[in-house]
Amino acid sequence: MPAMQNNNPISQNLLDNIKSPDDIKNLSVEQLLRLSDEIRSFILDVVSVHPGHLGASLGVVELTVALHHVFNAPCDKIVWDVGHQAYSHKILTGRKERFHTLRQRGGVSGFPSPEESEYDAFATGHASTSISAVLGMAKAAELAGDANRNHIAVIGDGGLTGGMAFEAFNNIAGSNVLIVLNDNGIAIDKNTGIIGDYLKKLPLEGDRVNLFENMGIRYFGPVDGHDVKGLITILNKVKTIEGPKLLHVITTKGKGFKKAEQDQTRFHAPGRFDRQTGEIINKKPGTASFPEIAGQTLVALAANNSKIVAVTPAMITGSSLQDFQKQFPRRIFDTGIAEQHAVTFSAGLAASGYKPFCAVYSTFLQRAYDQVIHDVALQKLPVVFAIDRAGLAGEDGATHQGVFDLAFMRSIPNMVVSAPMDEQDLRNMLYTASRYNKAPFAVRYSKNRGMDKLPEKDFEEIPVGKGRKLEAGENIALVTLGYAGILARKAIGELKKENMFPAHYDMRFLKPLDEEMLAEVFSRYRDIVTIEDGTVKGGFGDAVLAFKQKHGFNNRVSILGVPDRFIAHGTRAELYEACGYGPVAIYNKIKELAGS
Amino acid sequence: MPAMQNNNPISQNLLDNIKSPDDIKNLSVEQLLRLSDEIRSFILDVVSVHPGHLGASLGVVELTVALHHVFNAPCDKIVWDVGHQAYSHKILTGRKERFHTLRQRGGVSGFPSPEESEYDAFATGHASTSISAVLGMAKAAELAGDANRNHIAVIGDGGLTGGMAFEAFNNIAGSNVLIVLNDNGIAIDKNTGIIGDYLKKLPLEGDRVNLFENMGIRYFGPVDGHDVKGLITILNKVKTIEGPKLLHVITTKGKGFKKAEQDQTRFHAPGRFDRQTGEIINKKPGTASFPEIAGQTLVALAANNSKIVAVTPAMITGSSLQDFQKQFPRRIFDTGIAEQHAVTFSAGLAASGYKPFCAVYSTFLQRAYDQVIHDVALQKLPVVFAIDRAGLAGEDGATHQGVFDLAFMRSIPNMVVSAPMDEQDLRNMLYTASRYNKAPFAVRYSKNRGMDKLPEKDFEEIPVGKGRKLEAGENIALVTLGYAGILARKAIGELKKENMFPAHYDMRFLKPLDEEMLAEVFSRYRDIVTIEDGTVKGGFGDAVLAFKQKHGFNNRVSILGVPDRFIAHGTRAELYEACGYGPVAIYNKIKELAGS
Repeated sequence: MPAMQNNNPISQNLLDNIKSPDDIKNLSVEQLLRLSDEIRSFILDVVSVHPGHLGASLGVVELTVALHHVFNAPCDKIVWDVGHQAYSHKILTGRKERFHTLRQRGGVSGFPSPEESEYDAFATGHASTSISAVLGMAKAAELAGDANRNHIAVIGDGGLTGGMAFEAFNNIAGSNVLIVLNDNGIAIDKNTGIIGDYLKKLPLEGDRVNLFENMGIRYFGPVDGHDVKGLITILNKVKTIEGPKLLHVITTKGKGFKKAEQDQTRFHAPGRFDRQTGEIINKKPGTASFPEIAGQTLVALAANNSKIVAVTPAMITGSSLQDFQKQFPRRIFDTGIAEQHAVTFSAGLAASGYKPFCAVYSTFLQRAYDQVIHDVALQKLPVVFAIDRAGLAGEDGATHQGVFDLAFMRSIPNMVVSAPMDEQDLRNMLYTASRYNKAPFAVRYSKNRGMDKLPEKDFEEIPVGKGRKLEAGENIALVTLGYAGILARKAIGELKKENMFPAHYDMRFLKPLDEEMLAEVFSRYRDIVTIEDGTVKGGFGDAVLAFKQKHGFNNRVSILGVPDRFIAHGTRAELYEACGYGPVAIYNKIKELAGS
Repeated sequence: MPAMQNNNPISQNLLDNIKSPDDIKNLSVEQLLRLSDEIRSFILDVVSVHPGHLGASLGVVELTVALHHVFNAPCDKIVWDVGHQAYSHKILTGRKERFHTLRQRGGVSGFPSPEESEYDAFATGHASTSISAVLGMAKAAELAGDANRNHIAVIGDGGLTGGMAFEAFNNIAGSNVLIVLNDNGIAIDKNTGIIGDYLKKLPLEGDRVNLFENMGIRYFGPVDGHDVKGLITILNKVKTIEGPKLLHVITTKGKGFKKAEQDQTRFHAPGRFDRQTGEIINKKPGTASFPEIAGQTLVALAANNSKIVAVTPAMITGSSLQDFQKQFPRRIFDTGIAEQHAVTFSAGLAASGYKPFCAVYSTFLQRAYDQVIHDVALQKLPVVFAIDRAGLAGEDGATHQGVFDLAFMRSIPNMVVSAPMDEQDLRNMLYTASRYNKAPFAVRYSKNRGMDKLPEKDFEEIPVGKGRKLEAGENIALVTLGYAGILARKAIGELKKENMFPAHYDMRFLKPLDEEMLAEVFSRYRDIVTIEDGTVKGGFGDAVLAFKQKHGFNNRVSILGVPDRFIAHGTRAELYEACGYGPVAIYNKIKELAGS
């Protein structure tokens, strides 16, 4: 049995006997406190070895226990906003035995998933959706005449900065819903903006008509989110109150694990760490990740161009902008979880002569699809989109795969859409984007680590819309976009050992497409294989087919990429293969084509 | 000279002399009042003949005059949210002489456009973007050390229900911006939700710390938006105040034209009307529009299925849901301008066993792209998307063309994407969607009118993923999706007169694609012409190319649809031809193929 952080060893026998939330209904407050400690210890045991979202999960242990004690899931619907706070919920709802498979292929998802359990009322992975979902469920219950069902959204103060939470508030009148505001003052980085500042001041003395009550929502709190007894008392009270109500709960992210409380940003999702000391175990200290390289590059570019500014929706750390923030604190804007605003705010900066680099994860840019079209591309504003976590993201799973961006950006007029293959190309592409002022310029890159330590080199401008030949070959040409080129290179290495020599071209740009290079490829090679780290529906392969059609070529084209289904969690290496464009899959495809 | 609505003829000589806002700086209050009357009269003269957005424009005449009197555009930046309220602004900023070309091809746009005038600081057509844009501009001015420039967003109470407005509020601290809240209590229909109710109560007696002040925004008002003198006084006052401030202005939509004040919904964009009496001139009373047919169909379906509910983001009238609202008031949910919430709220309803029809314009569904993916498709929730104004929308122009939906939905797994061609098919497709519960089902249809009076028929279920052969032919097959089939049929009619007989297949579904039918088409015909009312980048034509590739066909394929650029305003008939898929363009294409 692992030692407890609080040096107070407790037998695990309570948690071992919890098969469903029914099993905690009759526990005493003292037992619930012990249970909370056991859950916390169990999460630490598992997540220290099988990495996941630690901080948020540790923060809501008591809240989860209290909610499942007071409410009757799955009849009562509990929706966990963003979802990575749901580990305790998963452990209490029949998934303890499988919890060690967390975020692994075929294992327990890191986010709520109705496919996984009837206790997960709604799939959540992106922020700010829970209130809307719960309102829909509450209206359904009302129409069905089902007055006994409770509907609860648990949303963080970070999630509250997303506009759709306010859209839901605007529609909340008359609905029997409980919003549990899990206020820990932090998303991944410290929360920014007025809402967060405002929450700190609650309750304002003599001013009971607060922001929420102005919107017709009964406000309760703030209460201590680690006091199980207090939580149960207040939850039982608000449960009986008609109409929309909000319970403001103060929690500590990383609660109960000293290192996680001290460095909340790092322990949001720390990777493997020492269960006793909390030391984080770094895997590959020698190489930088693509996001890190992008962050370093932006600092270098900004040092030479005072018009460059950075905009990020709550991803200072995620997008490796900490150095930028230190060096240019006036030139970086953290909007909170607010992708729509981040993009249109960037458009406003660009309209006034600045050069914004809007750094957004691919999956979250989906939130600002309309703003990219309507506020940026339509006006040809030179916003640079630094699109992080593009392609398969891996362990975060279906809600976080960045597989749609190539397809959805390809159909937007005026956009330059690039996907650098390696770390040197990423640097040069960002440099190129910084000098391009005719229209928006997207640079999408993977979450992967680079392969080498990056040499110190001057920046080189890349001709916009031009690809490059990496390798001549025989019969078959691999035409890759972005990180897919690295996967292809591995396959080519193996094929060479067997005296097979496919050519390799790196497109670099999805848009504009290098038709000159493609004409060369189609003229010289019998078989063309396109490979992209994104959906094949509407993406790069389709663009190559459209080229082929337009120019009347008849070569055989094989399109490798993400198939038309949602891709669950797993390592990226596993998922590349499962999707048919990992090195082994590429190798097999080439062998198959060569033999046919 | 046309008689004035107020029976008080005034010489137009003031307005005739206004070439730029500089020309109104020295006018007296009395002259500004006269000028306002002249502008109102001029708008009525033009818009009664050249249809446009009347109500909102009439409501802000005095506000526009006051803003341009107090502020110095284009140095000061004024951003008009949604933009259709900007007619007075256009007239005062050098576009009076061209104003009669409003919304016509090559003429003045119905929305602000920086390409059209330096006075249009930002392009706006979708709601709730203005505060974000202005914040970006204000930060740019701050970084550039330009303290003298003013930044003003004029946003309606309708626009305030869009979440991105609140995302911007959350980021407003420390910015020198003025939000002018143009509160007329209505979007197209009466505003719904808490925000609107709240505004009506302002100022709350003894409660000066209101919703806005809770967010750190200085609140001023409410003031009469038709009192030029009062507006100038308060604008001059707030102009000198540092930090974010909001001026709450009460206006009357349709102000000064009795019929427009009385029936604000109808006079939002009334089409042609009698300048004297206000009678609306109906063009084709015999046929219904596709949205009208959809609205009628939903009523019929809901009458037989108590699980059917309707969700609309502020488009009760736009999506022809008035009858539904009358007959099933508890089963329709108007979320306000809040597409994100509307979609996820629909997902919540579906997760609890209801069958929501979420009616959204194609261009506005872009706002909820992430929610369609993350909250609906991922969970295979059986939400029906009734996608209105799909394809080229016409006179509303670049911000409103519904040309991306086919491409962006094609890449979303689990979605059924259909596009009925004619009115009978639309009815049956909605019926089919109502019975399909395996996954989300999109039905996208044009703004056009049907060709016939719809006969009373029973509903027929359409096999999901199956197209239909409309006409056999020789050598060339037209394969169309949705309304493009009507355009093709017109071309075929002409071609027949010249003894040319292309085949015609109507795909009905973009996804799943009817591969069986396509195999027949590719086997029987030499030339395939795909036609779609949407962008060719990633849409239907690309899907056919992917089919062709997969099955190894070598037929020549021509892809007709919206090219890869933003399409400005014009009639739909003009734009179809300009984009190369109107009846004439199709006719020419077939002739060209036949001769080659």
